[in-house]
Amino acid sequence: MRVADLTTPALLVEAGALEANLADMAAVLPGPRLRPHVKAHKTTALAARQLAHGHQGFTCATVREVEGMAAAGLGADLLLANEVLDARRLGAVVDSGARVTLAIDSEATLRAAVDGGIREVLVDVNIGLPRCGIAPDRAGALADAARAAGLRVRGVMGYEGHLQMLADQAERARLTTECTDRLLAAHADVGGEVISGGGTGTHTMNTACTEIQAGSYALMDTAYTAAGLTFRQSLTVLSTVVSATPPAGDMPGWAVADAGLKAFGMDHGNPTVPGADVWFCSDEHLTFTATPLPRPGDRIRIVPAHVDPTVALHERMHVVDGDGPDAEVLDSWPVDLRGW
Amino acid sequence: MRVADLTTPALLVEAGALEANLADMAAVLPGPRLRPHVKAHKTTALAARQLAHGHQGFTCATVREVEGMAAAGLGADLLLANEVLDARRLGAVVDSGARVTLAIDSEATLRAAVDGGIREVLVDVNIGLPRCGIAPDRAGALADAARAAGLRVRGVMGYEGHLQMLADQAERARLTTECTDRLLAAHADVGGEVISGGGTGTHTMNTACTEIQAGSYALMDTAYTAAGLTFRQSLTVLSTVVSATPPAGDMPGWAVADAGLKAFGMDHGNPTVPGADVWFCSDEHLTFTATPLPRPGDRIRIVPAHVDPTVALHERMHVVDGDGPDAEVLDSWPVDLRGW
Repeated sequence: MRVADLTTPALLVEAGALEANLADMAAVLPGPRLRPHVKAHKTTALAARQLAHGHQGFTCATVREVEGMAAAGLGADLLLANEVLDARRLGAVVDSGARVTLAIDSEATLRAAVDGGIREVLVDVNIGLPRCGIAPDRAGALADAARAAGLRVRGVMGYEGHLQMLADQAERARLTTECTDRLLAAHADVGGEVISGGGTGTHTMNTACTEIQAGSYALMDTAYTAAGLTFRQSLTVLSTVVSATPPAGDMPGWAVADAGLKAFGMDHGNPTVPGADVWFCSDEHLTFTATPLPRPGDRIRIVPAHVDPTVALHERMHVVDGDGPDAEVLDSWPVDLRGW
Repeated sequence: MRVADLTTPALLVEAGALEANLADMAAVLPGPRLRPHVKAHKTTALAARQLAHGHQGFTCATVREVEGMAAAGLGADLLLANEVLDARRLGAVVDSGARVTLAIDSEATLRAAVDGGIREVLVDVNIGLPRCGIAPDRAGALADAARAAGLRVRGVMGYEGHLQMLADQAERARLTTECTDRLLAAHADVGGEVISGGGTGTHTMNTACTEIQAGSYALMDTAYTAAGLTFRQSLTVLSTVVSATPPAGDMPGWAVADAGLKAFGMDHGNPTVPGADVWFCSDEHLTFTATPLPRPGDRIRIVPAHVDPTVALHERMHVVDGDGPDAEVLDSWPVDLRGW
């Protein structure tokens, strides 16, 4: 099958760019130094490629992601880096033979872990992003309570998510160290062998963590590229131009592609059409202008602004060999970790 | 089953509000005066409720929506109000016995209709929104060409999408008439019995169209409510508070719910937590503050800013009886028209 044969819109992953990203990251953070975050691709077949590059442990954001990874035989060491109030489905995954470590940041989430049949936890520490995580100076007490409840405390995690795309990279590095200093202080009270955190934007700067939870590096998006990351843009959305209106009077011409709000995560703004000026997205349309103006039937590859919510809108990603319209479709991977 | 038993995040539809919205709209635009747009809910079970309220024809935005509606026995009169360059899957739906009318706005889309086995078309006219649609003064020639190619031209369509949420309702009405004047001019050249257009925001103002393509009225969102529409908010996303951080120093306390960028269409901004102040959304989180601060395990119903892309992120919608935490779950409808 060729790219030209695909129904649009379609999520494309360029095989060479993906493999180069995986190899580049594995060279910087080999083996257990990286715990790839599957939320950025939600695809067990892609996780299997990350395993082939040497990473056996994975980070998940949802219970469904943990279940799907374990079902795909990728459950050697799964971290749910998120809080849950009902851990019974996770306990069932543990009973099936996978290793699942759960983040806790409160008595309530500790109790949910015990009640759900979880055996191993990390204490999630708030290191600056106002989201989940216990205050650093309370982490030790929560770890003590977890151990008293029979849980094994593997260590701590903390995510400097607010720094991942800070434009000034020197400032990003300085603030990352401020954040990880808080995490190290908490770790001194908590103990354990794991200090987990970081992301694609800080993966070279966060040297305090024993493992980095990067995910976006594999597929990339325009926001991370703008933040100075040099991984290749392997992910695009293939789209067909369905309408074109020539210039008239003061109005420039425009074209309409068949991928819109239901094909792109929009929280980072519009996706990018290389060489064109994007006007706006509608549910199933992207209106743009370009010179020369594309014609109905032309196909374009559109670059998402934010990879994670974009992937979540698609049923499958097609692995393709190259950037041309006649590129071969090498494989078709179900985005099988969607939903909750 | 009760709402309290649902895994979160979960899409909820309050049955009474939904039925009231369907009844109110059917009173204003009875039977064939409304051609409900399924893109706003992507759910054949909900479309069946719209049929029960008297509307036999439906509007679709994608080929998948047409296929799914026909497969669900709702194919008496399906309009794909969008352009396609490959109509073969639509032709197969026609061959299966459903009635499918396709929008065309160019020679290329006309040819695709013929090649795909489509028999009936509407000429899509650009009446002001820079998206699909032929210029009004060229619509008649395209209709002639379509008839010459053996297609039955049922009439015209045009969508004043840029006016749906215009804050000044008098101005919205005045501009709607400007747009529909263009559509009527095109119709004079095209002929046919159908003049299709309009939406929830202009459904009372657009009196030129023989049928209105409204969709959002059934479920609603904060954007349409802000635009003055008085349909009830029947759609919410049920979410569990997974973390709460008490105030400390100058920092107010905050809570984190387990629904984020992968549970809400974000192109209209953040969703709304009634009585609370939303700070930001992350992939699987919504950070907010409220007094009193919710506690881990509390459940909240969050109101989407834009219904269409929100629905597209969920596998099913749960029909619930009332707004309380113990509301009964009456039914669970697959969101079966997702994808392409």
